[in-house]
Amino acid sequence: MHVDTIVQNLLSRQSEIVDRLCAFLRLPSVSTDPAFIGGMLDAQAFLVSWLERMGLSDVQLLDGGGHPAVYGAWNGAPGKPTLLIYGHYDVQPPDPAEAWVTPPFEPTIRDGRLYARGASDVKGSTAIALETIAAFLKLRGACPVNVKVFLEGEEETNSPSLRPIVQRYGDLLQADGMISADGARAHPKIPTINVGSRGIVEFEISIRTADKDLHSGRYGGAVRNAAHEMAKIIASLHDEDGAIAIPGLLAALPSVSVNARADTARFPFDEAAFVENIGARAHGEHGFSIREQLTLRPALDVNGMWGGYTGFGSKTVIPSTAHAKLSLRIVPGQDPDEASDALKAHLCTVCPRDVELSIDDPGTGSKAFNLPTEHPLVLAAKKVLSEATGQEPALVRLGASIPITVIFQELLGLQTLMFGFALPDEDIHAPNEFFRLASLMEGLSAWPRLLEQLGEYSADEFRSMAAEAESAAV
Amino acid sequence: MHVDTIVQNLLSRQSEIVDRLCAFLRLPSVSTDPAFIGGMLDAQAFLVSWLERMGLSDVQLLDGGGHPAVYGAWNGAPGKPTLLIYGHYDVQPPDPAEAWVTPPFEPTIRDGRLYARGASDVKGSTAIALETIAAFLKLRGACPVNVKVFLEGEEETNSPSLRPIVQRYGDLLQADGMISADGARAHPKIPTINVGSRGIVEFEISIRTADKDLHSGRYGGAVRNAAHEMAKIIASLHDEDGAIAIPGLLAALPSVSVNARADTARFPFDEAAFVENIGARAHGEHGFSIREQLTLRPALDVNGMWGGYTGFGSKTVIPSTAHAKLSLRIVPGQDPDEASDALKAHLCTVCPRDVELSIDDPGTGSKAFNLPTEHPLVLAAKKVLSEATGQEPALVRLGASIPITVIFQELLGLQTLMFGFALPDEDIHAPNEFFRLASLMEGLSAWPRLLEQLGEYSADEFRSMAAEAESAAV
Repeated sequence: MHVDTIVQNLLSRQSEIVDRLCAFLRLPSVSTDPAFIGGMLDAQAFLVSWLERMGLSDVQLLDGGGHPAVYGAWNGAPGKPTLLIYGHYDVQPPDPAEAWVTPPFEPTIRDGRLYARGASDVKGSTAIALETIAAFLKLRGACPVNVKVFLEGEEETNSPSLRPIVQRYGDLLQADGMISADGARAHPKIPTINVGSRGIVEFEISIRTADKDLHSGRYGGAVRNAAHEMAKIIASLHDEDGAIAIPGLLAALPSVSVNARADTARFPFDEAAFVENIGARAHGEHGFSIREQLTLRPALDVNGMWGGYTGFGSKTVIPSTAHAKLSLRIVPGQDPDEASDALKAHLCTVCPRDVELSIDDPGTGSKAFNLPTEHPLVLAAKKVLSEATGQEPALVRLGASIPITVIFQELLGLQTLMFGFALPDEDIHAPNEFFRLASLMEGLSAWPRLLEQLGEYSADEFRSMAAEAESAAV
Repeated sequence: MHVDTIVQNLLSRQSEIVDRLCAFLRLPSVSTDPAFIGGMLDAQAFLVSWLERMGLSDVQLLDGGGHPAVYGAWNGAPGKPTLLIYGHYDVQPPDPAEAWVTPPFEPTIRDGRLYARGASDVKGSTAIALETIAAFLKLRGACPVNVKVFLEGEEETNSPSLRPIVQRYGDLLQADGMISADGARAHPKIPTINVGSRGIVEFEISIRTADKDLHSGRYGGAVRNAAHEMAKIIASLHDEDGAIAIPGLLAALPSVSVNARADTARFPFDEAAFVENIGARAHGEHGFSIREQLTLRPALDVNGMWGGYTGFGSKTVIPSTAHAKLSLRIVPGQDPDEASDALKAHLCTVCPRDVELSIDDPGTGSKAFNLPTEHPLVLAAKKVLSEATGQEPALVRLGASIPITVIFQELLGLQTLMFGFALPDEDIHAPNEFFRLASLMEGLSAWPRLLEQLGEYSADEFRSMAAEAESAAV
């Protein structure tokens, strides 16, 4: 059966496919908050049942000590490449809940958009991959390549158990490359292939200025206030432009390559639309375009900060503790541990001697990701996207971090092609996240063709081409 | 019956009096949080019943649109001064609840200390005043002076309805002076009389840097982060010493008088104990002693600050909003509106033009308070305290704010003697608030003697002495 027929079949079943995606989205699989454990278990059961029904073998939960990954394989294409198919079933917390137009776990379609927490990140694109495999197996009885489906449950918490899982199940997960449903498209109209993403380092800092909270009338004017001290620490992280103001961190940073800047400049990026979309002016490091700031330069953000009384009304207290969650996006050439150490050294330097600083570091940092441009995964994707759109795909980098790419490369030697269909404006990690139904259709059209294209290679051809691309990139 | 007998009787009934205070403390009368409305209503009913039982007339709730005040009078001493007896039945929120050794609304005695929210601020001293009146009426059938008991329900929220109540019930509340159970003692061993307190201005500020929260990977490095901007604003409020760094605010400040500095220096203040008590080094305006920083100089504190994700785990978000609760303690000679305007002007100046700043000002500011040292209330208190302790009481000022003193002076022309028995180390507004049983006994010994002493004056004498003191102080 020709792949066009597979695609036609998928496109004709939009309503059935949307219904199944909505059932997936109704499960509140928030990995970061123990209160949502029920949603996590429901999502695992949902996926296990689905993989079994579509005919995958060896369907199981891969346990690494945290939320397990869901796994299933189809090995019926001997001599063909084996591709790990990556997605994740966990989602970000939905708060602030009151900011959602419709509830985050009640998927709702408005104006061709499917609104729900996780719709764009990344249940929508995960569903595209699974529907593609199911369609091949149902209609043709076979996939063009061997597939090993791996659906993670901790992507939104920086994958703390992913290393243990990949180490423990290393034999099961052997493959020639990986295709990820995560990693959004960079542009709604121009085909793109992601050849990199920023890494990330995250930790929480707490300061203490006194043994206990103090009355602001009795003590105000003669004692330190933890909120003031935290404010001074956070204020020291950036200069007036918004650029990172930590010399130790910038000194170790490789300069941005001419090629990378040229690639970035070739990709049309609408700065005016960017600004309009956020409802504010751009604000970042001097001497770089917005797109360069977003993808080629590190970024340091306070994701949350709190101290003292934050409830209703007033409370005349001098907070003795204050807290902040920090995340640092790093770029190729930056080592997560070194970057983390430089940031911590700065915090220790700016924190006054009689303020107690503690750092809670989960140690989940990950390097930036780099995919060689001549890798067979890139070549296959280029061909599929060129044919589908009539345009040469642009090579782009993501600002976001996909630590899994680094982990699979390190532990299993796998390169990752990100082939997700989310778009950048879909409010992921924020209220009113959505996924476009048009993107769902484009994904259901492209994924079967990508697998078909990869099936043109023998396993040996794939491996030698990949090895050559890797060595050229070094 | 001699006042000594009244005092002896009160001291002999410690266990009964503590039991009644514990019943009062069990009622969670948190005025700032609507969730505690039940505790507020219970406390009102408890007090109404108590005032009626002790024989006060005209017992009623005085409504000013918010939490009502509880009122009751005894007018059986014609020709004698009439004193308004002030206390408050509302308490601060108990959070953080987990930091309490025993639950905040389950009064517990340990080592001679009664632990409960509100024990020190100010149900303990309020109970002293009420037990005193009850004892006079029961044992002697009369008080030495006319009394009008006024127990406020919004002291901890800066008394938003106090003006409306005093205006509406102005005739009922006519008196020659006020004695307040609020206003702590400054020292455990040295008798003191409070002749002033700092005023306060409070408001909440919010900033917005974008229409919505943004993903820190997709947007990090090219947009403003509300947590960063709030940190810069807060960091601008103080210099490295912790002194207020707002020129417009300091310019309007009268210089500290030689007399006030001399009074302050005469009062022994243990800086080492102060530092040890808070578990941190002192930190404040250069050129002033700690005691001066606490009572003669303004203080600006962030009581709470928050923005972004503050829950369990991580969330890679760039907050678009951040908030802070600010309070400014002001000193005699500072106008609350002018001080508030200077602070707001500074905030507007330091907030970048493309960051939206909004200020939520409840307009509850109050001036600092000043009691003339020759006022008959002061003279009576001096006599009672000298006789009880064998020491000349020191004239001190409070760092905390008691807006009611200003309101009653402005609207009814009343001066206030603060005659509370709390001590400064009792963790009011913080976890594990307590009141010493020894202080309870000292208060039950002093209050009857104070009323007896005031009963030595005729109403006319009291009024002419008061008027003379006021004009000398101007």
